[in-house]
Amino acid sequence: MEPFKWRGRVWIEKDGRTFLGYGRAILLERIREYGSITQAAKSMGMGYRHAWHLVDSMNKSAPKPLVVTQRGGKRGGGARLTGEGELALRHFWDFYRRFQGFLEDELTHLT
Amino acid sequence: MEPFKWRGRVWIEKDGRTFLGYGRAILLERIREYGSITQAAKSMGMGYRHAWHLVDSMNKSAPKPLVVTQRGGKRGGGARLTGEGELALRHFWDFYRRFQGFLEDELTHLT
Repeated sequence: MEPFKWRGRVWIEKDGRTFLGYGRAILLERIREYGSITQAAKSMGMGYRHAWHLVDSMNKSAPKPLVVTQRGGKRGGGARLTGEGELALRHFWDFYRRFQGFLEDELTHLT
Repeated sequence: MEPFKWRGRVWIEKDGRTFLGYGRAILLERIREYGSITQAAKSMGMGYRHAWHLVDSMNKSAPKPLVVTQRGGKRGGGARLTGEGELALRHFWDFYRRFQGFLEDELTHLT
């Protein structure tokens, strides 16, 4: 079956809608890194409104918000990942890594 | 992590493009069942042109065509799945089933 490639995509759903997938996980990590939804979105070439809606959707789906925002202050507001956010990220990346392992094991079925 | 659900999608790629995924696999099975691309497409609520392009793309990517068409004849032409088509389908469904097994195993990580 060469040069065919086994490919796939995984995500976590809640109530039939995407809760957390690859793009959202990267967005959460960038928010952790930049402390700002605006900067995180910019670093991914994503519009602020889109990023805001993704964060809002995750916050509303989870038992507790994944991201909290602060208005004003010296640095003109900001955003930070909560413990719940760290937990959700860990769940997703663990799932993602096990799936990559599954795809690698699939190579043994290619012959 | 209840009521969160681990979800995913798998497909086979060639040269960076989809060769065979769930929808294409169903299309091939319907072509086998109906002996006609038109009827197969109709049974899936898919336009004939779209179905034809999917078949053409699969035929061009594979070492040998997955579907062959006959023009004219008593039944006004038709299409049938080749041995190569049966083989590709088996590869995809085997992959798909192993992936479903992977997702079921993931439930053990939910707690």
